[in-house]
Amino acid sequence: MVDHHCHGVLDRDLDRGEFEESLTEAETGGPPEVSPFDSQIGFALRRWCPPVLGLDAHAEPGDYLARRAELGAVEVNRRFLSAAGLEALCVDTGYTPQAILDPPALGRLAGASAHEIVRLETVAEEVAGEGVTAAGFAGKVRARIEACVPSVVGAKSIAAYRAGLELSGERPSDAEVTAAAGRLLRQDRPRVCDETLHRFLVWCAVDAGLPVQFHVGYGDVDADLRRGDPLLLIDLLRAMASTGAPAMLLHNYPFHRQAGYLAQVLPNVYVDAGLATHNLGHRAQALITELLELAPFGKVLYSSDAFGLAELYHLGALLFRRALAGMLAGGVDDGAWTACDARRVAVLVASGNARRVYGL
Amino acid sequence: MVDHHCHGVLDRDLDRGEFEESLTEAETGGPPEVSPFDSQIGFALRRWCPPVLGLDAHAEPGDYLARRAELGAVEVNRRFLSAAGLEALCVDTGYTPQAILDPPALGRLAGASAHEIVRLETVAEEVAGEGVTAAGFAGKVRARIEACVPSVVGAKSIAAYRAGLELSGERPSDAEVTAAAGRLLRQDRPRVCDETLHRFLVWCAVDAGLPVQFHVGYGDVDADLRRGDPLLLIDLLRAMASTGAPAMLLHNYPFHRQAGYLAQVLPNVYVDAGLATHNLGHRAQALITELLELAPFGKVLYSSDAFGLAELYHLGALLFRRALAGMLAGGVDDGAWTACDARRVAVLVASGNARRVYGL
Amino acid sequence: MVDHHCHGVLDRDLDRGEFEESLTEAETGGPPEVSPFDSQIGFALRRWCPPVLGLDAHAEPGDYLARRAELGAVEVNRRFLSAAGLEALCVDTGYTPQAILDPPALGRLAGASAHEIVRLETVAEEVAGEGVTAAGFAGKVRARIEACVPSVVGAKSIAAYRAGLELSGERPSDAEVTAAAGRLLRQDRPRVCDETLHRFLVWCAVDAGLPVQFHVGYGDVDADLRRGDPLLLIDLLRAMASTGAPAMLLHNYPFHRQAGYLAQVLPNVYVDAGLATHNLGHRAQALITELLELAPFGKVLYSSDAFGLAELYHLGALLFRRALAGMLAGGVDDGAWTACDARRVAVLVASGNARRVYGL
Repeated sequence: MVDHHCHGVLDRDLDRGEFEESLTEAETGGPPEVSPFDSQIGFALRRWCPPVLGLDAHAEPGDYLARRAELGAVEVNRRFLSAAGLEALCVDTGYTPQAILDPPALGRLAGASAHEIVRLETVAEEVAGEGVTAAGFAGKVRARIEACVPSVVGAKSIAAYRAGLELSGERPSDAEVTAAAGRLLRQDRPRVCDETLHRFLVWCAVDAGLPVQFHVGYGDVDADLRRGDPLLLIDLLRAMASTGAPAMLLHNYPFHRQAGYLAQVLPNVYVDAGLATHNLGHRAQALITELLELAPFGKVLYSSDAFGLAELYHLGALLFRRALAGMLAGGVDDGAWTACDARRVAVLVASGNARRVYGL
Repeated sequence: MVDHHCHGVLDRDLDRGEFEESLTEAETGGPPEVSPFDSQIGFALRRWCPPVLGLDAHAEPGDYLARRAELGAVEVNRRFLSAAGLEALCVDTGYTPQAILDPPALGRLAGASAHEIVRLETVAEEVAGEGVTAAGFAGKVRARIEACVPSVVGAKSIAAYRAGLELSGERPSDAEVTAAAGRLLRQDRPRVCDETLHRFLVWCAVDAGLPVQFHVGYGDVDADLRRGDPLLLIDLLRAMASTGAPAMLLHNYPFHRQAGYLAQVLPNVYVDAGLATHNLGHRAQALITELLELAPFGKVLYSSDAFGLAELYHLGALLFRRALAGMLAGGVDDGAWTACDARRVAVLVASGNARRVYGL
Repeated sequence: MVDHHCHGVLDRDLDRGEFEESLTEAETGGPPEVSPFDSQIGFALRRWCPPVLGLDAHAEPGDYLARRAELGAVEVNRRFLSAAGLEALCVDTGYTPQAILDPPALGRLAGASAHEIVRLETVAEEVAGEGVTAAGFAGKVRARIEACVPSVVGAKSIAAYRAGLELSGERPSDAEVTAAAGRLLRQDRPRVCDETLHRFLVWCAVDAGLPVQFHVGYGDVDADLRRGDPLLLIDLLRAMASTGAPAMLLHNYPFHRQAGYLAQVLPNVYVDAGLATHNLGHRAQALITELLELAPFGKVLYSSDAFGLAELYHLGALLFRRALAGMLAGGVDDGAWTACDARRVAVLVASGNARRVYGL
């Protein structure tokens, strides 16, 4: 299986508070009486992860964390990344609030080839931080992204976290980019959150021949889900379609049916249910089934969107495999399709589509 | 069963490209490696349609298309329209990008009575194209729609494809319509896409005593799903409610729960899941079940929204029948309702509601 | 079980028209041929309520209403409130279009402790109606709310019915409140529908230490579902989070997945599926299961949102219990969690979370 969007794993031991913070998209703890383990993802973790560490399924959180500490981060990471059963990972390297393993190290743990996804806003903020004129910004950013191409397989936009997904379909003019760059450069710590710049960056990636991943829908509280509906992106997706550049809509929950619609009607749109798959735990099959209502089977990919916790690479992969297999087997049982077609779709979704789009 | 919203069927042989284009709402092909047959609708077609042409279920696309070509369009159309098992069809005659059979011919193929639905924007564009003054536009359109009444059973608005569904609940004044008509008439090829005109047309239909069908939600990429949420239409629906004029919300996916809400709280609102039913294939029952969460059983209708491909008339009807029957039988099995009540609901939804609203 | 949001019950006999109007969120009857009993809630009522009145399940509406009239309102109310099996009720006392029982009387019927929820807009409208200057409005409202505290356990905002849920996260300044109060006081019959005032009222409740209930999503046609998406409230919820004040999102359908997201990412957000649970009838389990996809199990509560009809207190409680038990038992059957964990979650959701948040 190919995990076409994930981040690095934390390479150190975690205390209970850190572990719980890494488990879900909550940024601050809930009330003390509300355990993050009491949730779909918590129950899924307790079902599937303890056996990887030599405990019985459904171990209590305290016992699980004690065993995890006993084994140590290196061994825990090795076990979960290996258990995930991946052949390739595409790693977004632009988000590093803490020290995490780089793609080659992650790939070695997973026994998989590791490929890099360049985060567009990070490139722009690096360029802005290095000292550049407003007029020189566009050229320097463009060159930096083009220079990445030999070593990266895709680009990532986090417009959903900043300006929202309602990006225009027009390429911004040089004058518009220069004006927006001027505003960016006047900030003490330049932070891209301007519709023009997000859009400019997407076109830089398209021009460089890279598939563009978009954060869509579900994420932490900063994601502002109001502006994360993939339908808001339709003008830009249409414009990208005319160039043939693939647009990869990540996460999508709870707008995954809207994302499936876009994957049907636009030739260049691909979708996944990363992050949501492991957060929904026992409900992952319902999610994948809804995603596959309109999305053609050649347009759906797997990603974990795992960050930090080794468990998430394994849980994402395991829950996705079970969800897809369960959905496909249900159809075979009902006579809706043949076992042969089901196997073919499973291969497409688990790895074939990703290999084709990213040229792995 | 009554199909209360469909279009004509293509009366000619189709090559593989044309067939695939007609299968889903995609307007341009996806990447060459992504077959439209690898999708819920493709799998549903391969399950249910080959036997109608004398092949085994799950035939490969190539074999299916070869057999289809061998039989020829006339025979294929006859078989599928007949297999659909319809007693009546309401045919939207306002969308004819290609030559398709007219309602009487479609009705003969189906062995069903065929009724016409007049597309409001088409009437307005015809009037505009014939030469009229801005001041004379409203009267001429109104007269044209009134003149249709003896021969049509309903009207159709495609505001969702143009201005979006956020239509005001106010009747536009004569001055507003004249101003909007002036803008329309100045176009080289008049195309209604003005909120005032869409609204004016709806009121013309209401005044003529016609139920008004609204395209809502799912459609091709031009539909702009962002502006196709039925909740946007609530002011106009409320205003129509005060006159008693039925509003028929078509398609609705992925906003079918919102549509069901409107069907509960507004006395004149009716809903269906046309187009989505056959596109979701094996998931049709999940869709119909969600639609029927809030929508009263006396407010839900069947439509295929089939256009062009004979298979879609059959698939829509078959999948809807199975979905409704499956949902109702599940309730009987659980003791949620009686078999007698289930049968009564099945008759209402399959045909009774349509017969009552359209006076068939 | 704790019903953390309901209203009073009607204490008089009802004719068929009144009964049907009280059954759903429709304000006016549908066409005469469409019975409100032919719906999920109608079928659920006919399944579960007749036995409480000594009839067989699935009794015909006419027989049911005859038996109801025969027993009389006092006996009917006693039977259904008692059958609901509640230990505590939190009663919103601010909506009384008809004479209904007050919390103590409702509690006696139910054999449960009854607590009051103060409706914020009602307080503001009472103060405005008593004669106050614009400059004195804020202080008098604030004092009135603070004076409630010993006797109420929470406050309720109906911003969704008036200005919509897009409330700013900023506390309004005194000058802003005074200006808004001036506009309110100039109305003949003061009716709060101003974003500033709704927001001011929420902060009064927060400052008084009260959990704040928000109407979200599903309600009658006045609720304007377009502006009832809980994501619109995110700025205010974030601002409340910094104070620790609990925000209770009520109803939520069809935006319950969005509400579950907010319950995961914000420490102070709690959710329920009141009103929708009994309206969806046989589909209640699907609803609760979707709500529990992202919402931590320590953040989900039960409410009926029953108003007027005694049946709704019972139906809400029964359908919620069955839905939660069915969802939890399904996980136990699949090995997704243990029976012990399932029991623990059942207790949290049915009563523990409510007791903790409201300090019952």
